[in-house]
Amino acid sequence: MKTQGQFQSSVDHRKDRARLLISCPDRPGIVAAISSFLSENQANIVQSDQYTMDPDGGMFFIRIEFDLPDLEQKLPDLEQRFQSIAAQFQMKYRFSVAAKKKKLAIFVSKEDHCLLELLWQWQAGDLYADIELVVSNHTIMKELVESFGIPFYHVPVTPETKREAEEKQLELVQGKVDTIILARYMQIISPQFLQHYPNRIINIHHSFLPAFVGGKPYAQAYERGVKLIGATAHYVTEELDGGPIIEQDVQRVSHRDDVNSLKRIGRHIERIVLARAVQWHCEDRILVHQNKTVVFV
Amino acid sequence: MKTQGQFQSSVDHRKDRARLLISCPDRPGIVAAISSFLSENQANIVQSDQYTMDPDGGMFFIRIEFDLPDLEQKLPDLEQRFQSIAAQFQMKYRFSVAAKKKKLAIFVSKEDHCLLELLWQWQAGDLYADIELVVSNHTIMKELVESFGIPFYHVPVTPETKREAEEKQLELVQGKVDTIILARYMQIISPQFLQHYPNRIINIHHSFLPAFVGGKPYAQAYERGVKLIGATAHYVTEELDGGPIIEQDVQRVSHRDDVNSLKRIGRHIERIVLARAVQWHCEDRILVHQNKTVVFV
Amino acid sequence: MKTQGQFQSSVDHRKDRARLLISCPDRPGIVAAISSFLSENQANIVQSDQYTMDPDGGMFFIRIEFDLPDLEQKLPDLEQRFQSIAAQFQMKYRFSVAAKKKKLAIFVSKEDHCLLELLWQWQAGDLYADIELVVSNHTIMKELVESFGIPFYHVPVTPETKREAEEKQLELVQGKVDTIILARYMQIISPQFLQHYPNRIINIHHSFLPAFVGGKPYAQAYERGVKLIGATAHYVTEELDGGPIIEQDVQRVSHRDDVNSLKRIGRHIERIVLARAVQWHCEDRILVHQNKTVVFV
Amino acid sequence: MKTQGQFQSSVDHRKDRARLLISCPDRPGIVAAISSFLSENQANIVQSDQYTMDPDGGMFFIRIEFDLPDLEQKLPDLEQRFQSIAAQFQMKYRFSVAAKKKKLAIFVSKEDHCLLELLWQWQAGDLYADIELVVSNHTIMKELVESFGIPFYHVPVTPETKREAEEKQLELVQGKVDTIILARYMQIISPQFLQHYPNRIINIHHSFLPAFVGGKPYAQAYERGVKLIGATAHYVTEELDGGPIIEQDVQRVSHRDDVNSLKRIGRHIERIVLARAVQWHCEDRILVHQNKTVVFV
Repeated sequence: MKTQGQFQSSVDHRKDRARLLISCPDRPGIVAAISSFLSENQANIVQSDQYTMDPDGGMFFIRIEFDLPDLEQKLPDLEQRFQSIAAQFQMKYRFSVAAKKKKLAIFVSKEDHCLLELLWQWQAGDLYADIELVVSNHTIMKELVESFGIPFYHVPVTPETKREAEEKQLELVQGKVDTIILARYMQIISPQFLQHYPNRIINIHHSFLPAFVGGKPYAQAYERGVKLIGATAHYVTEELDGGPIIEQDVQRVSHRDDVNSLKRIGRHIERIVLARAVQWHCEDRILVHQNKTVVFV
Repeated sequence: MKTQGQFQSSVDHRKDRARLLISCPDRPGIVAAISSFLSENQANIVQSDQYTMDPDGGMFFIRIEFDLPDLEQKLPDLEQRFQSIAAQFQMKYRFSVAAKKKKLAIFVSKEDHCLLELLWQWQAGDLYADIELVVSNHTIMKELVESFGIPFYHVPVTPETKREAEEKQLELVQGKVDTIILARYMQIISPQFLQHYPNRIINIHHSFLPAFVGGKPYAQAYERGVKLIGATAHYVTEELDGGPIIEQDVQRVSHRDDVNSLKRIGRHIERIVLARAVQWHCEDRILVHQNKTVVFV
Repeated sequence: MKTQGQFQSSVDHRKDRARLLISCPDRPGIVAAISSFLSENQANIVQSDQYTMDPDGGMFFIRIEFDLPDLEQKLPDLEQRFQSIAAQFQMKYRFSVAAKKKKLAIFVSKEDHCLLELLWQWQAGDLYADIELVVSNHTIMKELVESFGIPFYHVPVTPETKREAEEKQLELVQGKVDTIILARYMQIISPQFLQHYPNRIINIHHSFLPAFVGGKPYAQAYERGVKLIGATAHYVTEELDGGPIIEQDVQRVSHRDDVNSLKRIGRHIERIVLARAVQWHCEDRILVHQNKTVVFV
Repeated sequence: MKTQGQFQSSVDHRKDRARLLISCPDRPGIVAAISSFLSENQANIVQSDQYTMDPDGGMFFIRIEFDLPDLEQKLPDLEQRFQSIAAQFQMKYRFSVAAKKKKLAIFVSKEDHCLLELLWQWQAGDLYADIELVVSNHTIMKELVESFGIPFYHVPVTPETKREAEEKQLELVQGKVDTIILARYMQIISPQFLQHYPNRIINIHHSFLPAFVGGKPYAQAYERGVKLIGATAHYVTEELDGGPIIEQDVQRVSHRDDVNSLKRIGRHIERIVLARAVQWHCEDRILVHQNKTVVFV
């Protein structure tokens, strides 16, 4: 199988590139302050996207990509010097290094299509991330996952053992993993677990939310006779299927499609939508504000 | 302005063409019985679409277009002879003459985009129907509607006068109109009114149903942060926004779109979706079974 | 009919708002220079989009929306002071006032759908522009156009009179009109005419360019048996159907669609695609570089 | 890895089901003749799609799915008895057994995404076919293909050895394989080879044909500045990229996408479009007439 060596070329254009994401109350002079700061520190802005929720007193969001020679060496100093600007404008912000891959864990149950899409895009070099491990409450994906050279952990979950299972999962991921992808993982994540990964757990829901919240969405869609079915990738919050939506897409169906056919078509949308959301997350393109996302693509 | 004379050419290929729509319990031999009957009666099938909900004991639906020389003269006789086949297979069926335009009433309130799309497609010859009248609970569309040479009736509706208003509306449409189009008509139709036009009142709802049932769907969509917004055309039943869905479509939006922007984008989808549904209805392409549609396009 | 008074509310959020569009060779410090300049001059950036064609020595494009109190009074001075920055970075740039409507002429021949879409969006307040006049080489749109209160000019064109016709057209538009929209205008514009409106004439071509360049694209599409048909809005250059593409879209078709059906479906895509392109042009969202567009939406 | 055992359930609804595809000159009575024939022979039509190119003397196409108890045993007899009807109406026709999988060979060069999509859909049970072998002019897919339990053959091709290479390929496929899929196989197939598989070789072209015929379509698309890129699946004929189109789809791109980005986005469309075309072919949904397809979906 292919090795990760093929990433070399794409790493190159990421060399010395960093990203800066900021949310703050809007007021005059923010862009000038940031861009002057970067310019004075020899950083060259190569991409910048911004959004103001409402020019009169709303929130301001910006995502900047910049190149800084000898980034690795100079970034800590740059971050420190940025603190005074951040304080002045009450910014929530983060710097990230483009070349540094996000570390992912994928949680999966019995359906493999979303997992496979991620593994495949990862292998093809289209998903720039490290898939550190796969966790499942079943064993059937073990051979598949290990054939990609990725560690697989079986953590069974029953109503009685849920608490211990989550503790085991936390042990596996904490300190090793930035982001958890629920690739058709059919267990509800507890609030206790969620607080360790706020806005860093991505779920794929197999409907066009908020239609068909909860279980068996394709059966619900069939019953209602909808003409499009969809999928939704969102960050997981305590409210079931209620977290900030990252991406959605739909596909046309007709009366000819029974529930099995809807599921088959749905599998395709699910994997596409989840893969897009994971990609945007890994490229630091998503800012969360209250229960909504700002996605700079 | 253009006259209806331009329809002449498209009428020609409809000459002597009829449609037969049938629903019945599925069993062997239905297609053979129908097609032999038509063949023996000199009718030539030019288009046929069928659908069986479940081969083992489900429902069977078929839509046939056929040409019959001297249709107008011979159809009554054909219909009568068909009764024995219909009885044998417990068919619900209807014949219709392709050249005979459906007679429509359009109900509208204050927003003109759906009304305009229909008027415009009608004027362009893309909507093969007669728009007999427009009814509104406001007066602002009067001049516009009359500029198309279509009668406009103002029927104000208040909670107190709702019953009389509906009686007045019924007087206007009964005997003159086959189908009523609610082109952003913001009043709920009573069950008493509905029973006169079962599966013959088409509404456009400004959301991707069943998401955002009820009022202010764009405000709801904005609050939820969805990434696609949609519209749904459906037959009106007693359950609010719950009738059989005819057509749906969506368009991509982003965090940049505020409620006004969602409304503006939505207007475009609404008029497209409603126009498609009306077109299919006028071409006898829709069969309703329980709360779902079979649409042969 | 509705008056333009309804624009009032949308004008308000445009008050004191300006746009600045810049193209220049990329090098460090551009954004800092621009944003500091604006900040020092009391202008608040409310939206900014940028794109660098290639970080190492390519072209840099930026579109900024900013608010400046007492814009009308202060803008001339701001523009003058900007000249030194522009010179320093070899910028091509333009300032524009958001509240100031672009002045459009629409050229049309015999098909009305693109013209109607523009008139309608204009009337609904969705197209923020002044439609100064409509020019046609036929007379059939006269009554329609004048019903919107817009002057209509009939300028017949024959191979022999083409030069004089274009001179007449120029007389009608020069000094009065910023941008010309070819809304299914079936005459080729001469290079002499083009040089008066470089990148300011928008055409709608009824195919997904570069497929089916030239005449009868729907007949060509039918012959080739394509499964999608499209439309392309582009700026007009001397190369027929070869100018910078602004927007394209497609719709699914099938073997059932004959040439007339393709045309009918195509009409819908054409009007949507043209309307989007005109809207983006009127909002100063398009930068042209060589034969391509950068569209900030 | 998963075994093919999972297909069992889907085989069941294919038991005793056959398909009949017919092309013939249109004339009255065809449907009646076919459906009476099937009915008299205890075959029950469960799905039927038809299309008449032009009611007055054009071509007629029909695809029928029917259930016949003890199909395997009775089909040869049914086919023989059908010959007189076929002769009467000058039909080109074929019967096929729904449960009998098509036997496929996949030809591939260096890019794996289309191959992988097919292998994956096959493994997931979404592609009902036997992938008998994979042939490549390179060796890099060997391990991947064999990990799915599918034989891999390396047949190098150079300009000098092309004839022998094709003879070797023919030996591998003839008698074993119904259909050949060119899943990004970058060699031109000779007319000599083609005559063995007329309308049974499916290619994926990485553009929205007929735009960007020939080599490097993404580079061409980038140069032209298109706003959508696409892919086309077609049957291979002697004319390069000129065979009957089966399916096409597109995805939106922008000025931000460089050639590599177009390729990455394109890979996604290519695999989807090819997989759909292969699926429809395997389900006998495609009729070819001259250089166009009739696809009953």
